[in-house]
Amino acid sequence: MHIHLNGRLTEVDKAAVSPLDRGFTLGDGLFETVAIRGGAPRFLDAHLGRLFAGLETIGITAPWPGAAIAEAVAEVIAANGVDEGVARITVTRGRAPRGLAPSPESRPTLTVTAAAMAPRRAPTALVVVAGTRRNEWSPLSRIKSLCYLDGILALDEAQRRGADDGLMLNTRGQVAEATAANLFAVLDGVALTPPVTDGALPGVMRAAVLARTESHERSITLSDLETASEIFLTNSLGIRPVVSLDGKPVGGEKPGPLATALIEALA
Amino acid sequence: MHIHLNGRLTEVDKAAVSPLDRGFTLGDGLFETVAIRGGAPRFLDAHLGRLFAGLETIGITAPWPGAAIAEAVAEVIAANGVDEGVARITVTRGRAPRGLAPSPESRPTLTVTAAAMAPRRAPTALVVVAGTRRNEWSPLSRIKSLCYLDGILALDEAQRRGADDGLMLNTRGQVAEATAANLFAVLDGVALTPPVTDGALPGVMRAAVLARTESHERSITLSDLETASEIFLTNSLGIRPVVSLDGKPVGGEKPGPLATALIEALA
Repeated sequence: MHIHLNGRLTEVDKAAVSPLDRGFTLGDGLFETVAIRGGAPRFLDAHLGRLFAGLETIGITAPWPGAAIAEAVAEVIAANGVDEGVARITVTRGRAPRGLAPSPESRPTLTVTAAAMAPRRAPTALVVVAGTRRNEWSPLSRIKSLCYLDGILALDEAQRRGADDGLMLNTRGQVAEATAANLFAVLDGVALTPPVTDGALPGVMRAAVLARTESHERSITLSDLETASEIFLTNSLGIRPVVSLDGKPVGGEKPGPLATALIEALA
Repeated sequence: MHIHLNGRLTEVDKAAVSPLDRGFTLGDGLFETVAIRGGAPRFLDAHLGRLFAGLETIGITAPWPGAAIAEAVAEVIAANGVDEGVARITVTRGRAPRGLAPSPESRPTLTVTAAAMAPRRAPTALVVVAGTRRNEWSPLSRIKSLCYLDGILALDEAQRRGADDGLMLNTRGQVAEATAANLFAVLDGVALTPPVTDGALPGVMRAAVLARTESHERSITLSDLETASEIFLTNSLGIRPVVSLDGKPVGGEKPGPLATALIEALA
């Protein structure tokens, strides 16, 4: 497997980051997960736009233009011969001495990887995560930061409980998103998804669904979900119909019409 | 500078972690910051106890006993000739393929560093952080995880506003802690500190202060702080008297008697 590290394509086993890199020591960075379809990155402009906006939020000045990152993505896809799969772009603040305050001398680290992977379209059993919640008070809930341990714990809980994914609430107890995907629920015939101010990441596939359907943003409660005719999860890697929530059937336990149409059109 | 990486002491510029290490890709790990006084680590047993408890919380099985980590700390201190300073122990889940779910084949990564540094005892101007809050709903608020970007943003905001550190509230608006230190406030003659259920990390120095003084845990509001005769911050690296909060003087703008006594005794 080949990786792009700071402008150089190399064998992943020979690629090294410093143990003093703030990505490693403090989760101080961002990433993007980009679908690869027919050997090309999907929605790459949207991903790069979100990446650069997020870097501005956390005060990292990327020394590479978007075009250089796009070139690195293309090179990694070609080097690994990926036709259908996923690329990951990671940017950290780079190596620095200890302490929380960034060093003006740090130079950001960029890595790009690519791996084969089938689109995620499988019917999904979802459970409401009890062990942690998304923090809608934090800007981190609206950027794709390296600080992903809450999502790791939430997915682990869901899988231990026999489900495929976990539904995370925000600190007010409203629906935020799944562990690495946005949620849409069809309520009274209208597809709704929580606003980012409720702790939902502004997902690239979420934006594509909002743009192509009669859906809109609205806060969603667990009671709302009990009456949903259809629930589905979206992220860059696919659209997954939810067939059960906390063990109770959703939408007759089979993929609903909107999710089915969207998988056909987008995922 | 020398670093201990997976059992081997090496020059830090030659030390390499994989860009696929989950510490780097997902903030999937923990760390401890240990004071070095007279060339020896301070409260090391307490730090190792918290580290292993945290690893259990996030489901990482450390392949090294505490004694091996303690030996690595001693070796790093000696190799870098540190008499007064700070050691950092970092444990991650190790290298894994992409995705949130851990790989059973991952082997944890351990790094230990040491650097000279004076104890932190300086009078501190504190401001209430507006941009983010601690998430008392998450187990991460009670372990010292690598996911530190909220603290980085909070410190950056505080310093931009001309202060030395930021006071972070929890999602209910109660006092949680500073960006990397616990807070104590003397109210009606009694020293109080927020319980860990309010989003405070169970700090090692915090525990030492609770054990040696008439202090106890109680939720603290911002209104409480307005009436405090004394406020101070504690972490493993020192005890800092707070002399102002949001620009208003605290304790006559000079270190209070309890903080002064605790600095003498502990920090």
